[in-house]
This record gives sequence, structure tokens and C-alpha cells, in this order.
Amino acid sequence: MTPFKLTDELLDQIQLLIEAGKDSDLQESMQEYHYADIAEITNELDTEQATYLIKLLDSEKTSDVLTELDEDVREAILNQLTPKEIAEEIAELDSDDAADILGELPADQVQGVISNIEDKEHVKDIVELLRYDEDSAGGLMAKELVKVNENWTVLTCVKEMREQAKNVTRVHSIYVVDDEEILKGRLSLKDLLTTSTRTDIKDVYIPKVDYVRVNEKPEEVAKIMSKYDLEAIPVVDEIGRLVGRITIDDIVDVIREEADKDYQMAAGISQDVEADDSIWELTRARLPWLILGLIGGLGAAAIMGGFEEMITKHAVLFYFSPLIAAMAGNVGVQSSAIVVQGLANDDLKGSISDRLWKEMLLALFNGLILAVILLLFTWFWKGSFETALAISISLVVVIIVAGLVGTFTPLFLDRRGIDPAIATGPFITTSNDIFGILIYFTIARWILGI
Amino acid sequence: MTPFKLTDELLDQIQLLIEAGKDSDLQESMQEYHYADIAEITNELDTEQATYLIKLLDSEKTSDVLTELDEDVREAILNQLTPKEIAEEIAELDSDDAADILGELPADQVQGVISNIEDKEHVKDIVELLRYDEDSAGGLMAKELVKVNENWTVLTCVKEMREQAKNVTRVHSIYVVDDEEILKGRLSLKDLLTTSTRTDIKDVYIPKVDYVRVNEKPEEVAKIMSKYDLEAIPVVDEIGRLVGRITIDDIVDVIREEADKDYQMAAGISQDVEADDSIWELTRARLPWLILGLIGGLGAAAIMGGFEEMITKHAVLFYFSPLIAAMAGNVGVQSSAIVVQGLANDDLKGSISDRLWKEMLLALFNGLILAVILLLFTWFWKGSFETALAISISLVVVIIVAGLVGTFTPLFLDRRGIDPAIATGPFITTSNDIFGILIYFTIARWILGI
Repeated sequence: MTPFKLTDELLDQIQLLIEAGKDSDLQESMQEYHYADIAEITNELDTEQATYLIKLLDSEKTSDVLTELDEDVREAILNQLTPKEIAEEIAELDSDDAADILGELPADQVQGVISNIEDKEHVKDIVELLRYDEDSAGGLMAKELVKVNENWTVLTCVKEMREQAKNVTRVHSIYVVDDEEILKGRLSLKDLLTTSTRTDIKDVYIPKVDYVRVNEKPEEVAKIMSKYDLEAIPVVDEIGRLVGRITIDDIVDVIREEADKDYQMAAGISQDVEADDSIWELTRARLPWLILGLIGGLGAAAIMGGFEEMITKHAVLFYFSPLIAAMAGNVGVQSSAIVVQGLANDDLKGSISDRLWKEMLLALFNGLILAVILLLFTWFWKGSFETALAISISLVVVIIVAGLVGTFTPLFLDRRGIDPAIATGPFITTSNDIFGILIYFTIARWILGI
Repeated sequence: MTPFKLTDELLDQIQLLIEAGKDSDLQESMQEYHYADIAEITNELDTEQATYLIKLLDSEKTSDVLTELDEDVREAILNQLTPKEIAEEIAELDSDDAADILGELPADQVQGVISNIEDKEHVKDIVELLRYDEDSAGGLMAKELVKVNENWTVLTCVKEMREQAKNVTRVHSIYVVDDEEILKGRLSLKDLLTTSTRTDIKDVYIPKVDYVRVNEKPEEVAKIMSKYDLEAIPVVDEIGRLVGRITIDDIVDVIREEADKDYQMAAGISQDVEADDSIWELTRARLPWLILGLIGGLGAAAIMGGFEEMITKHAVLFYFSPLIAAMAGNVGVQSSAIVVQGLANDDLKGSISDRLWKEMLLALFNGLILAVILLLFTWFWKGSFETALAISISLVVVIIVAGLVGTFTPLFLDRRGIDPAIATGPFITTSNDIFGILIYFTIARWILGI
């Protein structure tokens, strides 16, 4: 497949068609594109053009386009549509996407939109989904699924399924429930292909079925689905009733967002921004961390001011302060990143003290190697073995402390229920800068005796 | 679902059963666990115990356990098995997993294993897959899929499918090919549920089908599948013949690995390591970046040595050198992270010069705010407005340069076909340390006139 590529020429051409009002040409040229591609195009149009395009195209297609748009673009377009027009879009969507879009509308518009949706079953599903926390399995799931009663025969089941399948984009598993809607097990489509129609469902279903509770965190759902290679997972309520289903495509989005967030956090960017956001949005995401870094630097400067008396005899100590701060920061970030990933992937075994002990040995080992390089460089450069030794010994201690802080902080945050990912990046760099400089000058003064 | 949690008690209990040779108890207790959970347990056993467990359990289950094990544990276990035993495991696996495991064996063992697999069709598939580069769509795909000829009727198709479906764990789409095996389109299982058996396939299949080429990069496949919400994608060779299929569970692994790699790279860890790896492995992953950081620090120290004459009158300049280095590093990492993510998600629009211009404005804006804080702090602390101003102006210039370097480097690497993710982390921090210190002292000297 030649992947779709949004070129400037294509965009110009579409804008020309919109401005000239060439509706049928426009419809025809959009025909060939996937809704995700049309969303990519629409994101680049101004609100008026985008709204024109959405109104022009069939709502069967535009409803999916809406779900793929950037949030601000979608908001602007929905603002231009009447409740009835929005209702037409939402009627075409699966309940989870419908609820997501409805959840973004101002509260006073929701009622108007809902009253314009004809399918009352669909409305009921959407309203139910609106109740769940966005950051939970309930907020991710869709109501569309195929379920059969354990008391049916395969024949009844196939008949019912044909009916239900019309509303379900992808059938993964057929869920089996009892008369109380309690989830009992599952049937695979493949099994149905190979079982006689007279069999009772009771006798063929697989009683072992993975499921999650409505209030489970999305990251947990993602972990379970990817660990067990599931493409869909049923969601049950507090008493075990089947209430929805989460599919892997939603989980792929969760994993990507989670990874993007952690990456940005490690890089000192505090909210989800993209390269094409405004300077103001980028500043809001970046400046707080820079101010934190600035405070760290001011702290380091103040500490160095306290060692002023050393500057005449040991100026060289001051030359190495950026090196010490950088090494403390780098080691801290490395250690915390490994812990953060271990926590995210659930593969941290053993106690905190074991982990700190191992990190100490590792830091000692790495620190000694680095100290030898530093010792030789400084000795040859400045000719004073004593100074070189003092700087090198300090470096080893700084690296050990930085490694321990980097290991301990995310573990501590995690125990307190705080996302450990905030520990990497500027937070650990800044505190390690201050610690590092303080330890460095203290030890150096102690060794050099001034 | 109560997620499986590997406790020390459980592990002890299993080890006791193994040591006591209580085979039937062991088999029974393993019965209830998912293969991914058994793999988690096996990873914690020593090689002898692990091999015992794998040999004891049914190869229908252990084959899947093997695919989920840590690579080093798997290697150790396979070392203990005879070619015939390995062949039994591989016979149970889908072709893609089978080829992955076979690909890890020493070349002289592969022949022995292959000759012990009875199903010659399966062997043919595996051998074909071994030919493809691991880092390509061909290396990810499986040969198991359901395909029908466009010249068949729905009835023939259903009959053939029942046969083929036996070998396919999950049927997503039915692919339609012509007599030359060229991919023509697809049928959904749902369509088959609702179409009369006498219809010709030619008349019902959907000619529009997304596919990838065998030599496509895994990250590209991941992008396409997650953009278009696909759960499986067919793979075609250079002349369009259907040769395999990639399913979303493999793509979830690709996305996770990719995210982990980028995160580690940003944190200055050069190869895939986990918290539980040995100190030696962790050192190999961490030390190179620390040495790079050390070189940056030595460079900064050497530069500061060149400004020695300023130390008597302007010692305070030296106190702020860690601050300058840290800010240069932080800004550089932020800018490069945003570009790296934009490149990864394909949402960087516009030219390089536009992007540099925007980054310059952003850096100027953020730099001015930070400079004002720094100015006030330094002025009140040291009482010299002139020095405070010199330091603050230098900071603004350093931040602008750091932002430009951070933006330009990943864009440049990307154009040269190098993974831009290496630009974040210690690489950019180190170069910005040196640049930053040099610019800072040069400008300060120029303003303060010494």
C-alpha cells in the first residue's frame, strides 16, 4: 500500500474545490480516501472550510472522520453544527465513540443532541457510557457486542447473533451470559463454524474468560490485553454482569498515549503538546520545568558562593562544577528511567533495599571507571595530583548518591500512588544538581583541607 | 479478573513440587495458569528447574510458554532439549513464532530440529519466514491465514475455509486472490454470515484492501495499522502475491518495544535492559553515555580554564556555570523530544526553516522570562546590576542556541536516515553543555569588558 501522504498540492486542490463550491467533484475525490486520511486533511483546513466539507459528505463517513480529528478542530466544527446535524453523526457511531464526542459538548447542548437521535436503544447505551469516568475501563468500553444466553442452542444462538452482528463492527468473541446477565464464558466464531446447530450452548462454551471490571484503570487493561494477546475483553460491573467490551484498537491508542506522556515527562514537557501547537501552548508545557531547572541552578550557585574561600587556591574545582552536576543528573535519570520502566512493565522483583544495594554497586563500579578518566585528565592538565584525586573521589560519591536518589524516588512515588514517571527528567536532574554540587564541594574541601 | 501476581510463596511452592518430583501435582497446579503466567514463573526458576517444568508439561502449552520467555532463559532451556523435543514444541506454534525461535538457535541445530518436524507444509512455511529480515514486515508476519480464490462460490469458499481455519488461531479477514495468488481484496466473516451460499466470490468481495510489502519496516506497519484501526493486515511480495499476514498483537509488541527504546534512549541507556539484568549488562548500557557526559564536562572545564583571568573579579560567573549548562541541556532535550515525537507520529508539517524560526521565538520568549528571574536573584544576591545583566543576557542567547540545536539535530539525523531518537538524552545534553558554557563566558566577557 502506498501510504497516504498529505501534500501541499492536494490540500490546495481541495481548498480550491471547497471555495468554488464544486460539491460533486469534492465528493468524488473524497470517495477514495479512508476516514483517517480525510481527518488528516480536515485538520489542516480552516473551520469554515472544514465544516463545509463535513456537512457535504455522507454522515456515515464523516462520523468516523470526527472521531479522528484533533480535539480543538472537532470542537470548532461541532460548534458550527445544529443539534440535529450532530445527532446524525452520532447515530452512525459505536456507543463508545458517540459517548466520547457527546462528553466533549457543553452540557446544555447534550440534551438537544440526544433528543434528536432516533434509535432509543443507542441513546440508552450512550447515556450509560457517559456516566463512567473517562480514565477507566467503563470510559473505554463500547456497548456493542455479541452475547448469547447459556440456555440457548447453537441454532438460536446463530439466529440471534446474525441480528446482533449487524450493530457490531467486528465480532471477536461471543460472550455467554446467564439469565441474570452474569458473564459465564465465551464462544469463538471459529467454534461456531465447526459445531452442530443442535448442540446446547451450555455444553460448548469455554467457561474460562478474561475480563476486567468497569473501574479498572486503562493502563491495567492495556497490560492485561497485551500480556494475554487479547483482541477484545469483556467488561463486567461490580456484581459480574456483562456491561461492555473493549477492543484492541482502543488499547493501542492507550499504549501510544501512555508512551508519549512518559517520554514527554522524561524530556521535561508537562502536558501533551505537539510540534504544531502554538508558542503559548508550548510555553505552558515547557516553562514550568525550565523554572524548576533554574531554581536548581540558583541553588547550586548559592552553594558555590558558600565555598568562595576556595576559589583562589582551587579555582579548578569550580571548572568541574558543570561536569559534576551533569553526571549527577545523567546517572539519576538513568536509574530512575530503569525503575519507571520496570514498574510500568511489572517486572520489578525483590525488595527496595535489594534494589538500592544493587544500584549502589553499579554506581560504584561505573563511578570508579569515570573517576579514573577524570583523575588522569585533571592530573595532566593541572599537574596537581591531590586536586585531581579530590575531584575524582567526590565524583564517585556524587554518582553513588545520584544513583540512589534516582532509584529511590520513583519507588517512593509509586508506593504513595503518584505516577513515578514524573521522577525522571528535570525533577531528578534538578535535585541531583543541588545534591551533587553540595557533596562535591564538601568532600573536596575535606580532602584538600581548606 | 484478579490479575495473576507472582508471589514468593507461589514460587517457593512450585520449586518444592519440582524438587520433590511431584509431577501430577505440578501438572494440575499449572493447569489453571495462562501460558503467559507460566512464562513469568519459568523466568524466575533456575535452568534445571525450568527445563524440568517445560519437559513435564504438554507441548501444546509449553510451546506458547517458550515464546513468552525472556530470551536468555529460553536459550538456556533450549540448550537442554534434544532436537526432537524442540521440534515437538515448534510443531505446535504458528509459523511466525516458530521461525522466531528457530532463528535464535545455532545454525548447526536448525537442520536437526527441522528434520524432526513431521508437518512438511509447516516446515516449508517456517523455512520461508527464516529468509526475511527480522526488522521487516516479512519478519513479523505469519503464514497462517484464510484465503479464497475469486473464482470460487461462497459455498466452496465456506468449505475450504473450514479446512484452513483449523490452522489459524484467529480469523480476521478472508483474503481473496486470483489464480496467480495476487491479492485482489477481502471478505469479512460477517459478510459470510449474511450472504447466500450460491453467490460468486467475485461478486461479493471488497476490492479495497490495505496491505503492506514484505520489506516494509515494522514501525511503518504499526503506524498504518493503528491509523486505520486494523486488526490484521495482509503482506504481499514484490509482485503483489499474498505471502502472509500480520496481526495486531505482534504490532502491540512493536509499539511497546519502540516506545521503551525511545524512552531509554532519552534517558541515556543505549540498549534494551531491564532492572533485573546483571550489573555488567547495565554497565554496558549506561557507561558509554556517562563517558559521553564526562567528555562534555571535561570540555566545559577546559573552556572555563580559558576564562581563568575573569575569576578574580567575576567569580560569580563561575557559580552560574552549572545553571547555564543545565538550562542549555533542558531546553535542548525539550526541543528535540518534540521533534522526535513529531517525526514518529508523522505530524510535522512545514519546512525546517519555519520550525527553527518558531523554536527561536519560543526560546526567546521563555528565555526572557527565565532571564528576568535570574537577573533579580543575582542582582539582589551580589548587588552588581552589571554582572547580573551580563549573566541574564547570556542565558537568553544560550537558550536560543540550545533550542535551535535541539530542533535541528533530530531533523538533520532523520534526513540522513539515522534514528532521530538518539538526539535526545545525553547526546544533546553534552553538546549543549559545551556550547552553552562557551557562549555564556564569551558573551559575559564581552559585556563585562575583561
